[in-house]
Amino acid sequence: MGIVVQKYGGSSVATVEKITNIAKRVIERKEAGDSMIVVVSAMGKTTDGLISLAKSISDKPNKRELDALIATGEMVSSSLLSMAINNMGHDAISLNAYQISIQTDGTYGKSLIQNIEDRVLNKYIDQGKIIIVAGFQGISDDNEITTLGRGGSDTTAVAIAAKMEGVCEIYTDVDGIYTVDPRIFSDAKKLDEISYEEMVELSSLGAKVMHSRSVELAQKYNIPIYVGESCSDKKGTYIREVNKMENKPITGIAVSDADVSITLEDINYDINMLSDIFESIANKKINIDMISQTAPSNGKVSLSFTIPEDEIDECINILGGFAEEKNITVDRDITKFSVVGIGMKTTSGVASKIFRLFKENNIQVKMITTSEIKITCAIKREDKGEAVNVIAREFNL
Amino acid sequence: MGIVVQKYGGSSVATVEKITNIAKRVIERKEAGDSMIVVVSAMGKTTDGLISLAKSISDKPNKRELDALIATGEMVSSSLLSMAINNMGHDAISLNAYQISIQTDGTYGKSLIQNIEDRVLNKYIDQGKIIIVAGFQGISDDNEITTLGRGGSDTTAVAIAAKMEGVCEIYTDVDGIYTVDPRIFSDAKKLDEISYEEMVELSSLGAKVMHSRSVELAQKYNIPIYVGESCSDKKGTYIREVNKMENKPITGIAVSDADVSITLEDINYDINMLSDIFESIANKKINIDMISQTAPSNGKVSLSFTIPEDEIDECINILGGFAEEKNITVDRDITKFSVVGIGMKTTSGVASKIFRLFKENNIQVKMITTSEIKITCAIKREDKGEAVNVIAREFNL
Repeated sequence: MGIVVQKYGGSSVATVEKITNIAKRVIERKEAGDSMIVVVSAMGKTTDGLISLAKSISDKPNKRELDALIATGEMVSSSLLSMAINNMGHDAISLNAYQISIQTDGTYGKSLIQNIEDRVLNKYIDQGKIIIVAGFQGISDDNEITTLGRGGSDTTAVAIAAKMEGVCEIYTDVDGIYTVDPRIFSDAKKLDEISYEEMVELSSLGAKVMHSRSVELAQKYNIPIYVGESCSDKKGTYIREVNKMENKPITGIAVSDADVSITLEDINYDINMLSDIFESIANKKINIDMISQTAPSNGKVSLSFTIPEDEIDECINILGGFAEEKNITVDRDITKFSVVGIGMKTTSGVASKIFRLFKENNIQVKMITTSEIKITCAIKREDKGEAVNVIAREFNL
Repeated sequence: MGIVVQKYGGSSVATVEKITNIAKRVIERKEAGDSMIVVVSAMGKTTDGLISLAKSISDKPNKRELDALIATGEMVSSSLLSMAINNMGHDAISLNAYQISIQTDGTYGKSLIQNIEDRVLNKYIDQGKIIIVAGFQGISDDNEITTLGRGGSDTTAVAIAAKMEGVCEIYTDVDGIYTVDPRIFSDAKKLDEISYEEMVELSSLGAKVMHSRSVELAQKYNIPIYVGESCSDKKGTYIREVNKMENKPITGIAVSDADVSITLEDINYDINMLSDIFESIANKKINIDMISQTAPSNGKVSLSFTIPEDEIDECINILGGFAEEKNITVDRDITKFSVVGIGMKTTSGVASKIFRLFKENNIQVKMITTSEIKITCAIKREDKGEAVNVIAREFNL
């Protein structure tokens, strides 16, 4: 019997009734002999509520203060879950980021975890206490509250499992990982297991089940993650090292409407300028995803890339230093459509098959990027449903 | 130009509009040259909301977790006020109890402040920042969140003013200290000043304007407190050392319905038992207020005392160890009626005048306690209004 780190998402702790149910399940597990550490997200839509409160004060809330504000959501849910367990006669203790010293790099809104103290955790484990940790947050070297970005509680759970050498279980409102989001493609199949690599790609490409950073972290420390539905006994999906002789070419499809594309036209072809542009954007911690650049013509090139929609204003500001306003265009009508599969490494012709299907179905491809295990296309939003349908059926997802 | 510590209560930060107004006033004061430290309570009824959330999980929520839960209310309001000031182009920073190390004795729900670090406060004052402090809370030696009890943000403000040698201003929804609560006696007069001693008595006797511990603390460090209405230019009341040749016999009246009386009848007269009873109650941090004991007769005495109504169950539990159930009676129908005035020290006959007026008006007195500057009677709740009226008119309050 070892250490089990469970994480419950916002919808799983949205009401007092749900919190009470989780308390029961945690106690059962503890009574079966496991040492329990439970990471919780904020209740239901709490984080959204706090953000809109901040936005009602300022269009661009101070980032330090926004982090201090939204971190309270997980403090509330962790105290309540601990209360519920105590009320059932078991010994639980809620701990926040200060108390277990979840040290981060100090970036507001998307901090990386640098270290977690195991002293306090071990102390309470040794005392037989059930530990409830406020997810999503950490403390910088200067004692500042910094949050880990949306879905950061997954990362909290994996980091604690890595540090404490425990198993990691992520409980959510879906019962596992599907080949395609079932809300988009109702015939999607649930996977028994998926490799870290594939899950990282699917997560970062828009599949909402897991925070991609948490999967990368799990891969780094080789921590298997079980993803299942809260308070259900349905079998979920394991994310872990998958060593099969043969793989299907495609494991899953991810789609995302969260990005926009920016194109800089007719900029002078200068290798320094390109790196300057991307460095300036990176300095603001804006994640660029797809990048494509035309071949130089008359010393000029056009450059397109995608960024998260909510970073658009900041990005345009930065680009103002590199190109004239008339040469910067923004396309908000894109959906990122990605197919992911380790099998692509060994199966040729996947890309050509996809492009042929797109052509036959009149789906226009605006941008393309590929890696060893994925192909991503930017397409029009209105084509999303059809693209998913066509590809999922073809590859039997 | 020195350090100004302002405190804004829950109703003063209840909405985004109110927070924005306070931000403007704080900035004006800062621009006039003062170094500003602002302590805030939780927004509106937030604390009550969190407590009822806890109560929906457990009738008797774990005290540690309850403190961790309700402390989030002030973290929210302090971040929002800092955001609002930043949004107006001024430099503000919110700080919680961990960040400025507000050290307490570790008692959950009613902690005493032991010390406040001035290093962090001085650092940000030197940088010209407006500091916003989450009131009502501190950290124990074990890094546990502990709250200071209802109204504790007043104490936070006074303690910071004492440490930083600043002036202290408490802003609330009333425009100063009145001789009697104007909701009970509409002709009550506002005081320009009141002594610490009188304010301590009035606060602890039920006047809701100030937390009595905060006034004691101010007296100890000789910090004058200004009490005024948020966002109003009406003149408020100073609480400070008052050195007048002559004082009116009575400065104010306080009434409180928050207490109940407990009577133990026919207990064996034994000096050890009395101290054992009060020690057991004190160990549970239950504050006993009025105490009266009959003279021994046949080796038996009766003992009455008042306690806060919400402590009644715990208190009855303790008393079960000392007396039979049939000998313990609880009277919930009491109002504590107190008159307070430094002038009583030098004016005789105040008590006799009050009792004569009560008799003439058929107001039954159930218990009496007195000190040098106050007389407190327990009366029936239904007599409250008349008692206030009769005494306030007689003493021209």
